Amino acid sequence: SVNPDLASERQTASFSVEKLTVLLDGGVEQTQRRRAVVEAIESDPVFSRENQYFQTQNERYEAAVRKAVHLQKKMHEMGWTENGPEYKYIYRALSGDVAFLLHRVFMRSISVLGSDKQIAKWIPLATQHKLIGSYAQTELGHGTYLQGLETTAVFDTATQEFILNTPKISAMKWWPGDMGRSATHTVVFAQLYVHGKCYGIHPFIVQIRSLQDHSLCPGITAGDIGPKMNFEHIDNGYLLLKNVRVPRENMLSKFCEVRPDGTYVRQGSQKINYFTMTTVRISLISDEVLTPLMKACTIAIRYSAVRRQSKLKPGEQEAKILDYQTQQEKLLPQLAAAYAFHFINDYLQELLNRGYREVHRKNFDMLPELHALSSGFKAVVTQRCTAAVEICLRACGGHGYSLLSGLPSLYTKILASCIYEGENTILLLQTARFLIKCFMAASAGQPVPPSVTYLAAVKPGKCPARNKLDFLSPDIYTEAYQHVAVRLISSTAAKLQDLIQSGVKKHDAWNQCTVQLVQAAKAHCHYITVKNFAETVEKLETKAGIQKIMKHLCDLFALHGIFSNTGAFLHDGYTSAAQMDMVTASYLDLLAVIRKDAVPLVDAFDFTDKNLNSALGSYDGQVYQRLYEWAQRSPTNQMSPAYERYLKPLLHNTLSKL
Amino acid sequence: SVNPDLASERQTASFSVEKLTVLLDGGVEQTQRRRAVVEAIESDPVFSRENQYFQTQNERYEAAVRKAVHLQKKMHEMGWTENGPEYKYIYRALSGDVAFLLHRVFMRSISVLGSDKQIAKWIPLATQHKLIGSYAQTELGHGTYLQGLETTAVFDTATQEFILNTPKISAMKWWPGDMGRSATHTVVFAQLYVHGKCYGIHPFIVQIRSLQDHSLCPGITAGDIGPKMNFEHIDNGYLLLKNVRVPRENMLSKFCEVRPDGTYVRQGSQKINYFTMTTVRISLISDEVLTPLMKACTIAIRYSAVRRQSKLKPGEQEAKILDYQTQQEKLLPQLAAAYAFHFINDYLQELLNRGYREVHRKNFDMLPELHALSSGFKAVVTQRCTAAVEICLRACGGHGYSLLSGLPSLYTKILASCIYEGENTILLLQTARFLIKCFMAASAGQPVPPSVTYLAAVKPGKCPARNKLDFLSPDIYTEAYQHVAVRLISSTAAKLQDLIQSGVKKHDAWNQCTVQLVQAAKAHCHYITVKNFAETVEKLETKAGIQKIMKHLCDLFALHGIFSNTGAFLHDGYTSAAQMDMVTASYLDLLAVIRKDAVPLVDAFDFTDKNLNSALGSYDGQVYQRLYEWAQRSPTNQMSPAYERYLKPLLHNTLSKL
Repeated sequence: SVNPDLASERQTASFSVEKLTVLLDGGVEQTQRRRAVVEAIESDPVFSRENQYFQTQNERYEAAVRKAVHLQKKMHEMGWTENGPEYKYIYRALSGDVAFLLHRVFMRSISVLGSDKQIAKWIPLATQHKLIGSYAQTELGHGTYLQGLETTAVFDTATQEFILNTPKISAMKWWPGDMGRSATHTVVFAQLYVHGKCYGIHPFIVQIRSLQDHSLCPGITAGDIGPKMNFEHIDNGYLLLKNVRVPRENMLSKFCEVRPDGTYVRQGSQKINYFTMTTVRISLISDEVLTPLMKACTIAIRYSAVRRQSKLKPGEQEAKILDYQTQQEKLLPQLAAAYAFHFINDYLQELLNRGYREVHRKNFDMLPELHALSSGFKAVVTQRCTAAVEICLRACGGHGYSLLSGLPSLYTKILASCIYEGENTILLLQTARFLIKCFMAASAGQPVPPSVTYLAAVKPGKCPARNKLDFLSPDIYTEAYQHVAVRLISSTAAKLQDLIQSGVKKHDAWNQCTVQLVQAAKAHCHYITVKNFAETVEKLETKAGIQKIMKHLCDLFALHGIFSNTGAFLHDGYTSAAQMDMVTASYLDLLAVIRKDAVPLVDAFDFTDKNLNSALGSYDGQVYQRLYEWAQRSPTNQMSPAYERYLKPLLHNTLSKL
Repeated sequence: SVNPDLASERQTASFSVEKLTVLLDGGVEQTQRRRAVVEAIESDPVFSRENQYFQTQNERYEAAVRKAVHLQKKMHEMGWTENGPEYKYIYRALSGDVAFLLHRVFMRSISVLGSDKQIAKWIPLATQHKLIGSYAQTELGHGTYLQGLETTAVFDTATQEFILNTPKISAMKWWPGDMGRSATHTVVFAQLYVHGKCYGIHPFIVQIRSLQDHSLCPGITAGDIGPKMNFEHIDNGYLLLKNVRVPRENMLSKFCEVRPDGTYVRQGSQKINYFTMTTVRISLISDEVLTPLMKACTIAIRYSAVRRQSKLKPGEQEAKILDYQTQQEKLLPQLAAAYAFHFINDYLQELLNRGYREVHRKNFDMLPELHALSSGFKAVVTQRCTAAVEICLRACGGHGYSLLSGLPSLYTKILASCIYEGENTILLLQTARFLIKCFMAASAGQPVPPSVTYLAAVKPGKCPARNKLDFLSPDIYTEAYQHVAVRLISSTAAKLQDLIQSGVKKHDAWNQCTVQLVQAAKAHCHYITVKNFAETVEKLETKAGIQKIMKHLCDLFALHGIFSNTGAFLHDGYTSAAQMDMVTASYLDLLAVIRKDAVPLVDAFDFTDKNLNSALGSYDGQVYQRLYEWAQRSPTNQMSPAYERYLKPLLHNTLSKL
């Protein structure tokens, strides 16, 4: 039975939840397919995550391997394929709690970087799991800056082999998933040396464990890097190489080859290679960032509708915490962000598809823009969504702090997305470099990519809003965001030029502007997000109340951004103090409006209870019962040796009656 | 041997690290005492935390009990007492990783709430550990709002007993530390009923486990609430009471008593009771919040001085990441905050001592101010320091995400401080209520407490700064902070009055202002922090470079606050856009200045390597070596059954040679 406090929230929905779910999925067919996958996965006990919060790192690893192996069987049974439309739903249904994800990266890197012959040899072996692959790029002392990698691969003409070494402790491979305990093979990135000359970083297939008994191969030292904040199910590993020899054919050679005599040959364009990085950054937004945020919103908002605390009106029953303005101000902007980023993800996917088509026609013109957008949005979305999940966690008070709420593991996992696939600050600076370049080009009247044409049309002036309702006009707020982005980009470009003209060296000048460059890159992404949300809303069908509620969320997202960064909008007087007070008023009004639909808005994300795996977030809202039942199953409720060993002797001089 | 990159940082210190350490400790004697305690604790292997990151919740609990029992012996040996000057150093040296902390709260509550007779009976038993106490206030469905507690205690005149019950699942006691597995007794807070009349919440001593065999007493259901984000060493528990009878003498009766005939008698003033809450909130700032932040700064800054990544100047070696402006902008404001809050803690302690003396003279006049300040600062400091530790964690990239860095456990532990001892938003609203009241009083010409006299002297006008150096004047920025605090408090007071005058009911009007009230309360605390830091710097001795570097940190703290909240300062034109650009310039300049002393500034916190327990933060900076050695000891490097069970069958069709 559904908690009446939660049931009442659903009765007054202003829109059709099912219609919104279908919109989010991208069509009725997708919704059906997703539900079929979820049903198949969740009805299979091997995939259960029920005990996850009680398990040790070792138990999590073992379960993830078991699931990965079972998944192969399941996929075969169900007729699902790795590249089929079901895969993303499988991943979502498993909550990513499965091993061999790096095996996929191993395969992808061979497909992208390998010659046809290499692909023909290795991909079937990997597909049939006759080996388990990994991907060894990051080193103990080197991450984002790939040129700094220290692992070496020296070509030995005599034996036609590469000799791989990690010459210093900082050169040790560190972090690769599936490598600590599972992998038999990996792709090692190393500085290639031929006849004493360094040719830079190249990828090599290296066997690290025996296929007979899984023992480490000669010259290999490898193991698990130990406990992390999350990802207990993954055996992130370390790898030392000491004179490990691999045949010449093991250097992935789609773009570069070492001939038997040691001649180094470059072939084709490597630009497509950068495209892969872009693809990964965009795909992680949906899989690793949006889903956790949507889950966190679901948990925190459902809980806030059943948790009662203090009295809002004297003499009445304690109030639902969702009725407090401060609680609304915590949660509803995060909900709006989840929708805003869902739509920006659609935008990026579309751009990516277009880019993909162009690249296949050997047209690489879109790559700089795609790189800038994927870098910037990877950084902005991961950062904002991580903060949002943390807000959801804290908004649930003590119970949010219990692992059984599901929120801690969502937080500790999403946090990693700020770090992997490019450190966020560095990514934002790449976006900023693109923006500065485009700004200069636009100022000089040169053409610029579509997403930055606004830099060419800098309009000074003032925000025309005259009352708080004007701030519910997308034109008004989108223009304000655009103005701020232009101002930050142009003023930083000016500072940069001033510094250089005053004699500061270019790299020093750049470093002295980086704090502001980061701000500019964020402002650009924020503007694009708001603009895209507003344009998306415009195109939605007006029936079933969907467009109306999405318009409210779009307004909330935009006004929350202004309310939280008032300085950026006030700085040059584009927005006046009086207008800022209107923004605040409209923003606070919107909270009360959206609050009414808060529960239906999270219901539309359509998570099952098993997928949420949260004592606070279940569809029926029976929070306290669930927390109690679940806690009783905790291993901490088994007898502890601490009593016999320490407590009993301490209490030895007991009094039977006090 | 010390990593040369770290050694070089120390050679150029502009001040005496030892002198600064002594200043932080409060005198040479304190520094010596602290070091003696640390030495005694760290040389004792029972207190080792070396394996902490590898242990399960059960292992952590057992270790914490072992340490607690051993600590009793140790304290006896060393001549340390619970109320002696060493205790805070013991707690710091143990990093709080010890059981029976709630036993102390049990004792304190009896001392504060018990009659002389009750104190005489229970305190000796507790001191000699003939029982283990806990403190059962929070319920599954009730936290901050004490009046909402549902546990009942009905007086039975016939047997002269109270009958305790948790009548609903939401009434179950939930969270009390030491209660899940260890405690034999607890203080239960329950609604007192006599002859059918409810007298509100009262405390009762209840035995929950047998002193003979530790089995649960009749009518008691209790256990552990399961896994949490941190605090694995604590057995936070649940407790159900079913017709549990305790004698009349077990109601703590310093302030209220039930006579044998059921007459309810109130005696003395309960005001002192609120004072306890204030004391706890202030004491947690130092023990639970500042120490973790100082550790996080030490780890992240030392690591940033040895980690090299990318090139700052073409052709040179990769740069220390601490040399990047963006890295400085992440870490140095957190370092400045650690110092700012250290000094605000001194300020609060002094205020508390004065309050204590007044209260003992039966003068309760200071209590409202103390309550407002302790609530506000508990919220502001915990929130800001939690965010700061998270920034430190993220600033270390991948390695920060490893538990071995020490940063994840600092983060997950400090996060809890935002939740316990009063939820932060509710606390800030209490501060806001005080501020609004004082503002009204001040406006009406009535006297107000010292910390808010500034509300009476509202000066309109503009910031007088004319160039960026003016913003290094404490008068200039302190005045700006004061202006913002007054503006936010007065404008929210005005909004509140307008709403009420327009017919909105008082409680609705309050709720509609809460987002802004929270902002006002934060602005007040921020102002007091800046003012106090500036005043502290003024009084420091000028020699040994201490005052100079503290002045820089004070400036940085103040300007970072303006830079991060420009809107608040720009809003009414107090600060102009041109002045804001000066703030930005001065702020960014300061980063480069303080960066030079960053390592000495964290060395002054004087943490030992054992206390930091971090592979990234050790004094010698041998980061990679330590990460590698430590990881090898992880239980995840033991043989896993996953190979035999899953991997071997998967790879069954192996090829001996690929």
